[in-house]
Amino acid sequence: MATYARPVERLITELSKLPTIGPKSAQRIAFHIIRGRPDDARALADALREVKERIGPCRRCFNLTEAEECGICTDVRRDSSVLCVVEDPYDIGPIERTGEYRGLYHVLGGALSPLDGIEPEDLRIAELVERVGREGVKEVVIATNPNTTGEATALFIAHELKDMPVRVTALASGLPVGGDLEYADEVTLGRAFAGRREI
Amino acid sequence: MATYARPVERLITELSKLPTIGPKSAQRIAFHIIRGRPDDARALADALREVKERIGPCRRCFNLTEAEECGICTDVRRDSSVLCVVEDPYDIGPIERTGEYRGLYHVLGGALSPLDGIEPEDLRIAELVERVGREGVKEVVIATNPNTTGEATALFIAHELKDMPVRVTALASGLPVGGDLEYADEVTLGRAFAGRREI
Repeated sequence: MATYARPVERLITELSKLPTIGPKSAQRIAFHIIRGRPDDARALADALREVKERIGPCRRCFNLTEAEECGICTDVRRDSSVLCVVEDPYDIGPIERTGEYRGLYHVLGGALSPLDGIEPEDLRIAELVERVGREGVKEVVIATNPNTTGEATALFIAHELKDMPVRVTALASGLPVGGDLEYADEVTLGRAFAGRREI
Repeated sequence: MATYARPVERLITELSKLPTIGPKSAQRIAFHIIRGRPDDARALADALREVKERIGPCRRCFNLTEAEECGICTDVRRDSSVLCVVEDPYDIGPIERTGEYRGLYHVLGGALSPLDGIEPEDLRIAELVERVGREGVKEVVIATNPNTTGEATALFIAHELKDMPVRVTALASGLPVGGDLEYADEVTLGRAFAGRREI
């Protein structure tokens, strides 16, 4: 016999599948929800449904958006002559919070990793090259993660762009190697932007 | 302008309200859900809704159940002459996992805490006293938390039951098994001394 009623066990099971949530946290969250107001549980359930129904990739930079183009691409105050290339949409938040960057983005959708079967055609690299040509981009700042796959991806992109009239830079080291850009603090990330170099 | 599309921010906000989930975890979970299969998000949303719609207190012990009485109360193999009194439904799981206990439970719904406005009438203490009389209970094992409010609650209950023909016990306090005496706090170590036994 399970310890808890089936709907409780089911909620704990579903919560345990999420990253950063272990079995004890899942149980604690489940009981928090059970004790809490029905409106709070409904708000979370609605937010889950809405995010799956309404969010898709920006047709220009592949950031997440509920419109055709994301809020950064449509912001006329941004400098469209500079593109910052990131692996994932959630790398954009930390960069925005530094306040150091006023250009646009290009989201690759991951990093090259032949061992995991992730090849150049699985990422939005062709779209980047095409975009650099079409939009007359003057600088591409590569901000892939400072780890093996991120750096291999940066070198591959630099090579793909080498015959185009565009400056290709990468974030300065100073980011802890082996770390995850998503978790970098603003100061470190801001320094890395200021010290970006040619590659 | 928010960094992410509104439905993404909304999901991060709702996730951040949950215990054990900080802003970075909330963001990581949100992006995991966005990247994941729609069925996984739906399963979690459904589990949230179901747990609020179908779970209520057992009419006998106040454990959580989707039936009138919980699976422990309706299990005829359990010893109904012993009641274990706990503060919350989620205290039952750890006790069940010990395999040491085969009696029934009584869930108080918290601990006495006059400073927080939690008085005896806010807990299921009257229900406990009534139940001990009606069900001919022979032993009440008080398993409230080993802290100030839990111990005050245990003493209050013991006093309420003192004129009834029932044995009232409490869980032993002492050093945690597998722990290190060097790191035990004074109060725990003091209790361990006071409760020392022949070996």
